[in-house]
Amino acid sequence: MRETNREWVFAERPDGEPGMDSFALEERSVPEPNHGEVLVRVRYLSVDPYMRGRMRDTESYAEPWDVGESMSGAVVGEVIDSKSERYETGDIVTGEGAWADYVVLGADSVAPVDPTIADLPAYLGALGMPGRTAYFGLLEVGTPKPGETVAVSGAAGAVGSVVGQIAKLNGCRVVGFAGSDKKVNWLTDDLGFDAAINYKDTDDYRVALEDAAPDGVDVYFDNVGGPISDAVFTKLNLDARVAVCGQIAHYNDESVPTGPRKLPQLIATRAKVEGLLVGDFANRFEEASTQLATWVASGDLSHRETIVEGLDNAPDAFLGLFSGDNIGKQVVRVSE
Amino acid sequence: MRETNREWVFAERPDGEPGMDSFALEERSVPEPNHGEVLVRVRYLSVDPYMRGRMRDTESYAEPWDVGESMSGAVVGEVIDSKSERYETGDIVTGEGAWADYVVLGADSVAPVDPTIADLPAYLGALGMPGRTAYFGLLEVGTPKPGETVAVSGAAGAVGSVVGQIAKLNGCRVVGFAGSDKKVNWLTDDLGFDAAINYKDTDDYRVALEDAAPDGVDVYFDNVGGPISDAVFTKLNLDARVAVCGQIAHYNDESVPTGPRKLPQLIATRAKVEGLLVGDFANRFEEASTQLATWVASGDLSHRETIVEGLDNAPDAFLGLFSGDNIGKQVVRVSE
Repeated sequence: MRETNREWVFAERPDGEPGMDSFALEERSVPEPNHGEVLVRVRYLSVDPYMRGRMRDTESYAEPWDVGESMSGAVVGEVIDSKSERYETGDIVTGEGAWADYVVLGADSVAPVDPTIADLPAYLGALGMPGRTAYFGLLEVGTPKPGETVAVSGAAGAVGSVVGQIAKLNGCRVVGFAGSDKKVNWLTDDLGFDAAINYKDTDDYRVALEDAAPDGVDVYFDNVGGPISDAVFTKLNLDARVAVCGQIAHYNDESVPTGPRKLPQLIATRAKVEGLLVGDFANRFEEASTQLATWVASGDLSHRETIVEGLDNAPDAFLGLFSGDNIGKQVVRVSE
Repeated sequence: MRETNREWVFAERPDGEPGMDSFALEERSVPEPNHGEVLVRVRYLSVDPYMRGRMRDTESYAEPWDVGESMSGAVVGEVIDSKSERYETGDIVTGEGAWADYVVLGADSVAPVDPTIADLPAYLGALGMPGRTAYFGLLEVGTPKPGETVAVSGAAGAVGSVVGQIAKLNGCRVVGFAGSDKKVNWLTDDLGFDAAINYKDTDDYRVALEDAAPDGVDVYFDNVGGPISDAVFTKLNLDARVAVCGQIAHYNDESVPTGPRKLPQLIATRAKVEGLLVGDFANRFEEASTQLATWVASGDLSHRETIVEGLDNAPDAFLGLFSGDNIGKQVVRVSE
């Protein structure tokens, strides 16, 4: 065990694209658990696009970080000291904690992890919040029916890759947008997507969609926004559903982005466009976690993580999300 | 009875804002009804914003007009010759017909009009398609709850004025956008709107909304689009609903209009934005017509029509929709 605890704090609000100036690594003493708490040695921590929103000083769905506050998010790790009857030393748990070597978590706020179903990083991805987001967003907001076409942006990301596979399990044609040939190949060769479009290698997304989605798009699961969404909206079918899960193309915008107006397109299609936040389904998380674990165990749901080594590199791992460095879930390995 | 039938035909596809070049008045012989049809002397004809869409050569929810085809829409008139057992001479009916002195209509496709409930023009407005659009659009797409705030654009138009009143009947706070002080006064003084904003007299719609909708907007019924909608979207509350009924600000656009992107705003609010077409509720038209007539008869629902005199002036009446000439429903009186 280390003598001190390294912990990343939020050092400066970024203007536009964040850089290393926004982060500072501090040395602190290892925290001690109080009654009902556990001390966890972090094995893996999660970096997620939504965290960019917490760097703004405007109220949104996730509480803004104060400058000086710890960077935090989902972590998975091992209980090394327990002041709770619910967990003992050696248990693996997941919860919300700091980007740090050690975190103290309330025993009520963590969930046990079963390493026999999947390796630990999967509990930050397909078996964690991104997987549940895909599950509820696709099934409850997208409501796909067998034979329909589902389009997904950010398809090779933590959420998108699960969305596409659940859509396939529901008998849909699935089209993904991703940013490299390697990602595109993973989607079609390993995950069973019917088509995938490398948007960095395509001039005209509408033309690409004509081949990839010849019957139009019934469900669009949007993680990205921008020109990809503009193109998909022109291909929406009658009574299409759009689940707006993320808009990573716009997270670093400092002014309100502009683009083609979409409301006029909604009348003829009677499409429904709906914002999605997984927290709204909190009372059904167990259902999702059980189903996702079942699919992973049976091999119906593949998952993949891009692992950045070392707590030192957590900011790089986060910044890499915006350049699309990750295939599948981006995680940081903090300790073995 | 006239010896010939005057009939407006679609003469030329407009580029941008239509002018008189798009219309030609032709003299034809008075048509004769076949078995199952009625000959109707048109008393009033309806001009509606959606007709602009039919002037394009692109497929949309309403069939495009061919050049040379008759202009057509909702009409109300008197049966002057009947080849159907369902109607006799002197009956007042409403249906879809040409902009003409006389039209032949299938008896199955017309509905009887009860002039004791309201004057005939109301059957093209609050008791016609616009009223039913307001009814289903607000109640089924907007789903307002008592105490919520409902915002309406094009609030002094045929649809908007009914939307606002139904919202008041449902216990909502109602805010309307309209284009003149006269309209604004009608909304607040006669129709019971809680607030109305003259958008032609307001620099900053967001600031105006802060006063008019201090608790934000739960339901937005959009007939207009453009900057009014941009402002309302910034005031949407958690779980807000947006019914996109019309986008008259954009109907004369020749290229895809641009504006602030709205998808990023939907995540934090989880707002639902849905296109609306009244035809989707065709199997419930009787329910709506009965309810609307009941409200009109009881005085709970006011209606108003702007009447342009003479078939000659039908194109002017239509073009006037785009400059906001009408208060309430714009109709043309074809005969006494």
